[in-house]
Amino acid sequence: MSRVAVVMAGCGAMDGTEIHEATLTLLYLDELGAEYQCYAPDKPQHHIIDHAKGEELAGERNCLVEAARIARGEILPLSELVASDYDALVFPGGFGAAKNLCDFAFKGAGCTVDSDVESVILDFHNSGKAMAFICIAPVIAAKVFGDDGKKVKLTIGSDAATAEAVEKMGAQHVIAQVDEAVVDEEYRVVSTPAYMLGPTIKHVGKGIRKAMEETVRLAGQQESLKS
Amino acid sequence: MSRVAVVMAGCGAMDGTEIHEATLTLLYLDELGAEYQCYAPDKPQHHIIDHAKGEELAGERNCLVEAARIARGEILPLSELVASDYDALVFPGGFGAAKNLCDFAFKGAGCTVDSDVESVILDFHNSGKAMAFICIAPVIAAKVFGDDGKKVKLTIGSDAATAEAVEKMGAQHVIAQVDEAVVDEEYRVVSTPAYMLGPTIKHVGKGIRKAMEETVRLAGQQESLKS
Repeated sequence: MSRVAVVMAGCGAMDGTEIHEATLTLLYLDELGAEYQCYAPDKPQHHIIDHAKGEELAGERNCLVEAARIARGEILPLSELVASDYDALVFPGGFGAAKNLCDFAFKGAGCTVDSDVESVILDFHNSGKAMAFICIAPVIAAKVFGDDGKKVKLTIGSDAATAEAVEKMGAQHVIAQVDEAVVDEEYRVVSTPAYMLGPTIKHVGKGIRKAMEETVRLAGQQESLKS
Repeated sequence: MSRVAVVMAGCGAMDGTEIHEATLTLLYLDELGAEYQCYAPDKPQHHIIDHAKGEELAGERNCLVEAARIARGEILPLSELVASDYDALVFPGGFGAAKNLCDFAFKGAGCTVDSDVESVILDFHNSGKAMAFICIAPVIAAKVFGDDGKKVKLTIGSDAATAEAVEKMGAQHVIAQVDEAVVDEEYRVVSTPAYMLGPTIKHVGKGIRKAMEETVRLAGQQESLKS
């Protein structure tokens, strides 16, 4: 049974982890026979958005405490995530990935990645383990791997400005449909556009299902290397 | 195409709408070709729970504003829900159903139901329209229909104390497994245990899928009566 770490950053498309994407990630991992554990950084969200009005709200919410809503309380601090305990790593999307896990939403290609997020990704990568990035989350992979000169291949769907930023960071952007998953076999990196394209949950579900199938397949290769 | 109203009450298992149950409700309705619109009461949640620690937090959150996270902003106030615009009504679970839509979590069989929730349910019922209640939400149906002497048939899984309260309110409780949906054809009421039983999201998904299939089937009968 593959063990998969799922990294979240709040609870909601506009300021945290996209709820449908995260929930369907957990559903399909469970249906595919993988075991998952949720993680999130134990730090404040960048801000809070009223999802009914799209306006910023006063106050402070914590990425881990809010992500615990999606994880039904079963969540650990990202600082405790160790690659050797898992076969794969998954980042659902939502603006939290671009506001709390890195600052791409504000700085585009000039963004920086949260240091815990970066070290976790490098740990998994250096162990040859599979990783999946959903929706806007592939910008994190583009930034972390962008300066190694090997051009990790990934998709954020077809948004021209975001694709251009991904290329500027040093990755190779591939246009993909919502029901597709792009796999870079060398990097062992999977990506799917999800709500970067939508339009509805059934479409997003098809792509996430494929992305989780590919992730579990790559994780199985990793497991067979160990044995 | 069936039109289904989905009623939420916050965002999170402990103080609002259970996120997995609501998300899978939307997924399966979409996959089954139904069109959905989300609603929630525009009023404060009973309280806020830190889902990581299970402890109450200070502050106030609004049922509709938080449910908008699950609905990706596409949500309307429950006070605007009119039965004639829809073919069916669905209540996902989570403690929000028993804390914000009624006060069953605190008063058990002696609970009262939010007046907007009660009038919406009676409107749908009096129009012969299908309704689905997931997880703990069937207690709302038990209370609303309990004193009409006809004993609506429903399930909350197998929890003895909750089943006893359901019977005390005047409903007939049926023990069911997580992958089953109970249908009262006369009342046109569907129910499934979901996280009242769990244990994991794939099990909950099977029951919600069946419940949505039954709901869309009943909604189709309603549509054919119209034509």
